Amino acid sequence: MIILGLDPGTATTGYGVIRMNHFKISAIAYGTILTKPEMAMENRLEVIYEDLGQVLEQYRPDEVAIEKLFFGRNTTTAITVGQARGVLLLRLAQAGLPIGEYTPMQVKKALVGYGSAEKKQVQYMVQNFLNLPEIPKPDDAADALAIAICHAHSRSGLI
Amino acid sequence: MIILGLDPGTATTGYGVIRMNHFKISAIAYGTILTKPEMAMENRLEVIYEDLGQVLEQYRPDEVAIEKLFFGRNTTTAITVGQARGVLLLRLAQAGLPIGEYTPMQVKKALVGYGSAEKKQVQYMVQNFLNLPEIPKPDDAADALAIAICHAHSRSGLI
Repeated sequence: MIILGLDPGTATTGYGVIRMNHFKISAIAYGTILTKPEMAMENRLEVIYEDLGQVLEQYRPDEVAIEKLFFGRNTTTAITVGQARGVLLLRLAQAGLPIGEYTPMQVKKALVGYGSAEKKQVQYMVQNFLNLPEIPKPDDAADALAIAICHAHSRSGLI
Repeated sequence: MIILGLDPGTATTGYGVIRMNHFKISAIAYGTILTKPEMAMENRLEVIYEDLGQVLEQYRPDEVAIEKLFFGRNTTTAITVGQARGVLLLRLAQAGLPIGEYTPMQVKKALVGYGSAEKKQVQYMVQNFLNLPEIPKPDDAADALAIAICHAHSRSGLI
């Protein structure tokens, strides 16, 4: 089974594609969907929509895992990231893909064992689980891989 | 020129279509795009996307005005409404429509003359400007008409 992990954002949406074969997981690809701040918001959303479509076409995931967003205070950021997340969810619904949603705490718990783990620890476990030569860059791509791994664990009944 | 006003929301997105002929404005249609809370979020977003497409096809607006969102505290609401707003903006971009964005305060100022006007006053002015027999229902549709009128005033250089 191929799992796509998504870490939503307007400027940068991280994606990570992994294969789960019984209890073994491996990395297929990871990267970012980027949009330019000088573009109008509606056109940036169009880029996100189109680029996610290309990722789906190229890697044909069976299931998708996406970060559930929580923001402490900044509601303006929440609206902006919400807009990008809405476009991603729409595109996934149009592709008829099953979607799993996980909070940052669930992702940390799945990878490191406790919900308050630091970013570096999570990234190290991503590298470790996927047997990669180094920590995936940039952070958004590593985060997306972490979300995909969290979904794989959840599917295997490991969390 | 035909102007579409949009008041974004996940459960209810209000829309209002007006015609601006020189300095005269009149109502063409108004209503709501509704989604059921028991549906998965991604499918609700799909409904919003499809239904906005139908509104665009039916009324063929030349320009669109949409509410700029501000939330005091509730970031969860901000994310949810942001998701709906993102899908609306995407659909408008795909249709190549020019988009105007207005804060609730700008809308109030355009219709009533001051930014702290009450909802009822705004609704009364919507009825008045559009020469309607009564205040448009529901509130989301009246709000959408108010946003469209605000855009008409902005286009005419009245605000």
